[in-house]
This record gives sequence, structure tokens and C-alpha cells, in this order.
Amino acid sequence: PAGLSAFVAVSQLLGLTLLATTGAWLGRYRGGVAWHSPLQFNAHPLCMVLGMVFLQGDALLVYRVFRHEAKRSTKALHALLHGLALLIALVGIIAVFESHRAKGIPDMYSLHSWCGMAAFVLYLLQWLLGCGFFLFPGASFSLRGRYKPQHIFFGIALFVLSIASCLLGITEMLLFKISDSYSHFVPEGVLANTLGVMLVAFGLVVGYVLTREEWRRPPLAEELALSMDFKTLTEGESPGG
Amino acid sequence: PAGLSAFVAVSQLLGLTLLATTGAWLGRYRGGVAWHSPLQFNAHPLCMVLGMVFLQGDALLVYRVFRHEAKRSTKALHALLHGLALLIALVGIIAVFESHRAKGIPDMYSLHSWCGMAAFVLYLLQWLLGCGFFLFPGASFSLRGRYKPQHIFFGIALFVLSIASCLLGITEMLLFKISDSYSHFVPEGVLANTLGVMLVAFGLVVGYVLTREEWRRPPLAEELALSMDFKTLTEGESPGG
Repeated sequence: PAGLSAFVAVSQLLGLTLLATTGAWLGRYRGGVAWHSPLQFNAHPLCMVLGMVFLQGDALLVYRVFRHEAKRSTKALHALLHGLALLIALVGIIAVFESHRAKGIPDMYSLHSWCGMAAFVLYLLQWLLGCGFFLFPGASFSLRGRYKPQHIFFGIALFVLSIASCLLGITEMLLFKISDSYSHFVPEGVLANTLGVMLVAFGLVVGYVLTREEWRRPPLAEELALSMDFKTLTEGESPGG
Repeated sequence: PAGLSAFVAVSQLLGLTLLATTGAWLGRYRGGVAWHSPLQFNAHPLCMVLGMVFLQGDALLVYRVFRHEAKRSTKALHALLHGLALLIALVGIIAVFESHRAKGIPDMYSLHSWCGMAAFVLYLLQWLLGCGFFLFPGASFSLRGRYKPQHIFFGIALFVLSIASCLLGITEMLLFKISDSYSHFVPEGVLANTLGVMLVAFGLVVGYVLTREEWRRPPLAEELALSMDFKTLTEGESPGG
């Protein structure tokens, strides 16, 4: 559908702008990013925006974008993108723990860390459950059918929680670094606020694409036939039921 | 449905606990709430959690809870609860602007204020549009049908944005008030973090109830008949179409 293409294009433009803005903030105002240095912390926001927002969002969009590919390939891409997102997020989490240790800052005391860690751990769990139910053989047709709505709801919920955690991270970082000048609308504050607004916009566009009824991926002709035969074989139901 | 009742009960329990926890935080650690005093600011978090979270959430649940009432009464209650939420949120916004003026603090510079103000203004707009399309006569059957999915999507999105704004507000307040002791897991920090986690849980439970397909309000027999007659009269379609 034409409307879908436009929304997906906007989402990708927004996603790339998110990454560029995060990079600009860290590069222009926070000294850049480097692993074995006091700048290690800066890898955290970059990895989280890339993994937990951009790649997670794109993984959710896979079924809307590749509408006419075989379900098996689409599913593999969905799992792969989420797996890549998890890996990059893991690097981002290691960055913050290592930089805290180097500077003697306690871990996991803030609301940002609670929400962010919950998002990451539940996202990993969701990925493992998704692989177990849908990618590997074993789960019955009816079990998959019953788990699918839960998988979709929690998938979108975790994407939203990831974005909320990013907003909390932006607020924390601004109040740690520029608490004296933030209220004077200094450029760094306005840039980081704008990044927050764009994160919300990315979530809105992706969420809209995912939940719009007419844009659901229609089952291919061979999937319909296959799933009905499979259902008949395994559950003893009639193909017309 | 039995599952629905349990989820709604949990949501109400969570909602009341949210209010009690906000009150406990403000009463125990922030000196309480009073309008004409330096404590005026404290009316802000209380009003926002009550209006933009608890009442907004309950207004969204109205169609799931009152499944067998006439649609007209359910709709009126939905609009009324949202209207009440908006009024209470307005009081909360006045509280923060007046307390800023009294203390000489600039307005609208933080990400919390940007997200929160966007949530409030768009929520007001959504309420006006909702009244215009669905409550007052005038909008045609087909126009209502086309706007309804947008109304539902943006309704849930604004509820989520409201909760995210509360999380940002909690983080700001903790970093303004207890930045020195927050990282030592002091009781106030843990209590406020827990409030944040409960806000997320409230959003999850309400969101789950709203999006679960089987829990949608089924049209009453007379609504089906009426809407079909109306459609036939106004659009010239056949009742069976």
C-alpha cells in the first residue's frame, strides 16, 4: 500500500536522524566516543539508540515491509535483527558498567537503570521465547497461535519501554553534565531535548505502522493452504473451520 | 469475561497504589502539599498522576468495563472522565508555572516539560476532536468510522506519552532534590523509583486490556440493527454489506 511506503520511509529517515543527532551530541559536546578511555561511557547512549531503538524498531517493521516474501525468510530476518539489536545493546550496557567501575560510581540506583535493565532483560527473554515458539520446530500450531498475540503485545510494549528508558537517560545525562546551564536553553540542552522528541516521533510512526489493521501482512496463498493442511493433520480440524 | 475482571481489578489496585505512593513521597519526604505556599510545586506530581495517568487510564477502560450498557451512556462517561482528567491536569500545570514564577525558575526548558506539555496539549485536542466526531451530532457514519481507528491509536499513544512524562518528572525531581544521596539507595530514591516502576506496570495492564482482541466491547443487538439501518439510510449500502 502507498501510505505504508511513505510511513516506512519517514520512520527510516527519523531513525537515521536519531543516530546522527546522538553522534552529534556526543561528538560536539561530550568529547566523542572511545572504548579504552574516560569516553567509554559515551558508547552507552550510541549503542542503546542504535540497538534498543533503531534496530528493534526495524525488526518490528519486517513483517510490514517484506509483505510478499516467504514467511520463513521474513521470520529469520525478524529474529536476526532483534539478535543484532541485543548484541549492540549488550555492548552499550558493558560500556556503562565498566565506566562506572573506572570512576567509582555505583550501579543500578536510578529509575533510568531500573527501566533500562528491565527493558533489556525482558527483551532478551522475549527473543528466546520467540525463537523457541516460532523459529525452532516443536511448538504445535495451536500453541503458536495462542502465544502470538502475547508476543506482539509485549514486543511493542518493550519497544516503548526502551524509548522511555532513552528519554530518562537523556534527562539524567543533561542534569549530570549541564545542570547549571540547562535552564538557559543552551544549545546542548536544546539538541538533546530535540533528540528526545525525535525518539518519541520514531516510536509513534513505528507504532502506527504496526497497529494499522489494513497494513497487516496478508498470508500468502501457499501459507493459507499449508497452515490449513497442517491444522487438519495435527489438530484434526476441518480445513474450512 | 473472567480474565478481564481480574486485569481490571489489578489495574484499579495499581492505580490507587500509585496515588498513595505519590502522596507518601510528597508527604513523607517533600513537606506535603499546599497551594499558597512554597509547597505549591508538590501539587504538580499529585495532579498529573491523578489526572494524566489514573483518570486517563480509567477513561480508556470504560468501553471494556461497561460492556452491556447503552453505547450513549458509556460514551458520555468516557468523555466525562477524560474531561475531569484534563481539568485536574490543568491545575497541576498551573501549580508548576506559579511555583516557578515565585522562585524565579525558567519554564519549559527540560525534556520533561516538552514531553509533558505536548502530551497535555495533544490530549486536549484529542478530547475536542472526540467530542466533535462522536458526541455531538453532525459527523456522518462513514466519517466516524474512518476517524475511530485514529482516535484509538492516538488515545493509547497519549496515555503512554503521559506515563513517560511522569517518569521524566520523577527523575528530574530526584536529581534536583537528592542528587548527592540518590546513588546510595536512600529510601526516598527507592520509593520514587518504585513509583516509576508501578507507573509502567499500570500502563502495561491498561494497555493489555485495551488491545486484547477477545475483550473488545461487542456491539449490543440494538446497536447492530440501528447502525445498519442508519448506514442504509445515509450511505445507500445494503444492511448485509
